[in-house]
Amino acid sequence: MNRVSIVCLGVRNMEASVRFYRDGLGFVTDVKENNPHMVFFNTYGTKLELYPLQELAEDINSVNPPSIGKGFSGITLAYNVDSKEKVNEVIELVRSAGGTVVKEPQEVFWGGFHAYFSDPDGYYWEVAYGPDFKYDEHGMLTF
Amino acid sequence: MNRVSIVCLGVRNMEASVRFYRDGLGFVTDVKENNPHMVFFNTYGTKLELYPLQELAEDINSVNPPSIGKGFSGITLAYNVDSKEKVNEVIELVRSAGGTVVKEPQEVFWGGFHAYFSDPDGYYWEVAYGPDFKYDEHGMLTF
Repeated sequence: MNRVSIVCLGVRNMEASVRFYRDGLGFVTDVKENNPHMVFFNTYGTKLELYPLQELAEDINSVNPPSIGKGFSGITLAYNVDSKEKVNEVIELVRSAGGTVVKEPQEVFWGGFHAYFSDPDGYYWEVAYGPDFKYDEHGMLTF
Repeated sequence: MNRVSIVCLGVRNMEASVRFYRDGLGFVTDVKENNPHMVFFNTYGTKLELYPLQELAEDINSVNPPSIGKGFSGITLAYNVDSKEKVNEVIELVRSAGGTVVKEPQEVFWGGFHAYFSDPDGYYWEVAYGPDFKYDEHGMLTF
């Protein structure tokens, strides 16, 4: 067992999230609708999925669904890039897509350059460049 | 922008989580220590990372770190397999690793077979088989 097949984000407003990820950030999907029931993005390797939050809780256990929390979930997603300029570019894209920049692009103690934003449901993404990051031909980290 | 480079789980007890993921479930890492500061697993495509929870909140914003929530975070991770038997096998592995099975393996309305477990910090994983799932040579979903 050594695999993350899908990261699924439970969303409160599908239309707002599709607008953010597909139309705003440019995540690739075959879905053309503006308010689908669910959507998968064709990220290489791992799929990113959006699914209605309450239904996701019920999919986990329909008899006793976990109660939905508030505050920082403890999970972050990372979008890693190969230059500092690209960190800035992604953050500008986030801003124009209506995301919240929670940490402006800046140098990090470990030698990299990063920023954080949150999506319409408050899920956190790190956008990071590191001088030692290596990528394969699909843009996935290989370290 | 169309990439999930890393899924990072903020953990409360690194040693317990390393025991669960590395020693229990068999996730692959170069880290030999039992209580490292952080650990990356070499999942194909997307890395799975464990990082101390409070430090993750401070990495997002050291001046005003998001307060850590309780309850279902709204994010699930999926481990997809190519047979019903493998769903059962993974769930048995989870049980022997000390994870909590929150939904026993069962048929799903969309034609698949799945189960859910939670890890030492309460993060949810779906283990799923679907008759239409296709995988590449690295075991990643290709639909």
